[in-house]
Amino acid sequence: MLRLEQYLRLLPATTHATAPALISASSSLSYPLPNLSALRLPRSRPPTLRGKTSSAVRASAGPDATVKRAPEMAQREVARAVADQAVARLGARLLPSSVPADVAEFRNGAGNAVGSLDVHRGSPGSSIDFMLQSSLHCKVPNGAIDITSILIFLNASTNAPHFLLELIQGRSTSIVVILDLLPRKDLAFHPDYLQKYYEETRMDEQRGKIEELPQTRPYRSPSLFVRSACSPTAIMVNIDCGQGGEKALEEIMHGQLATVIQEVLQIWLDNCADSTTEMDEVERDCLLKRDRIVRSKSIEVDLTANLPRMFGPDVSSRVITEIRKAFGVQEP
Amino acid sequence: MLRLEQYLRLLPATTHATAPALISASSSLSYPLPNLSALRLPRSRPPTLRGKTSSAVRASAGPDATVKRAPEMAQREVARAVADQAVARLGARLLPSSVPADVAEFRNGAGNAVGSLDVHRGSPGSSIDFMLQSSLHCKVPNGAIDITSILIFLNASTNAPHFLLELIQGRSTSIVVILDLLPRKDLAFHPDYLQKYYEETRMDEQRGKIEELPQTRPYRSPSLFVRSACSPTAIMVNIDCGQGGEKALEEIMHGQLATVIQEVLQIWLDNCADSTTEMDEVERDCLLKRDRIVRSKSIEVDLTANLPRMFGPDVSSRVITEIRKAFGVQEP
Repeated sequence: MLRLEQYLRLLPATTHATAPALISASSSLSYPLPNLSALRLPRSRPPTLRGKTSSAVRASAGPDATVKRAPEMAQREVARAVADQAVARLGARLLPSSVPADVAEFRNGAGNAVGSLDVHRGSPGSSIDFMLQSSLHCKVPNGAIDITSILIFLNASTNAPHFLLELIQGRSTSIVVILDLLPRKDLAFHPDYLQKYYEETRMDEQRGKIEELPQTRPYRSPSLFVRSACSPTAIMVNIDCGQGGEKALEEIMHGQLATVIQEVLQIWLDNCADSTTEMDEVERDCLLKRDRIVRSKSIEVDLTANLPRMFGPDVSSRVITEIRKAFGVQEP
Repeated sequence: MLRLEQYLRLLPATTHATAPALISASSSLSYPLPNLSALRLPRSRPPTLRGKTSSAVRASAGPDATVKRAPEMAQREVARAVADQAVARLGARLLPSSVPADVAEFRNGAGNAVGSLDVHRGSPGSSIDFMLQSSLHCKVPNGAIDITSILIFLNASTNAPHFLLELIQGRSTSIVVILDLLPRKDLAFHPDYLQKYYEETRMDEQRGKIEELPQTRPYRSPSLFVRSACSPTAIMVNIDCGQGGEKALEEIMHGQLATVIQEVLQIWLDNCADSTTEMDEVERDCLLKRDRIVRSKSIEVDLTANLPRMFGPDVSSRVITEIRKAFGVQEP
């Protein structure tokens, strides 16, 4: 198998320079498609907000749109089951969805890309900051890019890790999986935190279950920031079943992968979702500052660098604005 | 190839439970030998210091010692060349060796293990805290364990990364390599630091050069602390040339591996070794505190857990005392 780094060398310079993804689109743009240069996505700068309605937006409702909805596939089924599991447990700690209709579903002007975003803020008094689900589907000449993300972030009433899942496919025979309890402290500086959330929860065994599959290879995000932000037990893999491996991949996704994702979510629900942490003012300030930097940086290397290339500047701007709201970070 | 995690499951519980190594012995004990259980090393607790001379020490000078010196091998030749490169550049910034003769070279009572330790403190006014070189050789029924380490640590006049190299062999056909510029700040919290020392130095390209070798597999330290302490560009690999691959491994070690180690050292010499960092008191306090925790933790998971099993409690105690002195950390 070609290693990721070798793929990247084949990509056009602007794609190569952008760093992927804690969250969504960038990983796909810098990852799986060998024919990515054929995408010819617009290389526009992210626009300022509140621009006039663009042709892309108008076109999204038009009869020419070639993609009505993201297709059903194992990736989305698995993600939906995980989201349902989280919602069932978190219950009233999640407020109703807070995104406007034109962000809940969005399309690009060319009609070859559709996306959805759902954000539930945490209820007052809970440790939940927000739960974000997103799905992107972008047709390309030889297939499609499909990305599903589930993020459940906690607020500053606790320093427990966030939950993060990202599934990225550029082919029907392989998938990139990023699954982590995203740490909120410097783990080398805080061995007690490492022990509590990663050693005692035996998170590394979950990683082992996926990495021992013969189809699994490590996925190295080209973004050093993404690699730094994740925990040492993060599952960051490419599961590649090779030519003709569509059925094998589906079986893994509905089998071992779904099981591990559900178990990791369960570990997070049992150990993090309800936690509160006693902190003095200095500790809380530090936590808030770190959270803010990690959130801003992940939007920067991920969405603002890449989403405009899939959906055009105006649609992307609306979507990123909602994500910024959820993340509680302003435009730089 | 059997994955490391699978190896570990084969090892006796006490070995499995100990975490390896930023520095030396533990990686070997938890890593390469499938017949490790045959070692039957004493499972003693690390003793308090300044005990009476043990039988192990007396035996080390006796005529029964079966190993006089660590054998010449590619691992030691490569490490020596790297150390020479560092010494040539650092020159007068390194003080003369500061370890007593019975730590500069040491043996175990059974006569099947020899080691050496050399520590040069940095001269006053330089950014160098110390340079530590160690070498361990332990005969086992089907071969030997050989470990060579070079650490060059900086003091608090700079926050630049330390240099770390560890080479671990349990077979003549494979080697574990840990090579890193060891970060001294939380990289997710400090993207500027990440950019300066890891992105702009293009450290990840060095990692790529080793990982693209077909004989290379990722090496996952079973210690989550070790994984957390290393940078996202750390080279942590097992180069396994398979049965009959002695010559192939030697060629890689003298070729690509030696080149990459020298280039990484050069990057460190050019960007870190002479640096000074302006810091206010809070920043310096934080740096010192983080340094101390990382150093203590690495001694704990590494040496105090494992060295006594190779060299007995008294010899190990003398060696660890000198390493603690270099690291500037006390016994807990």
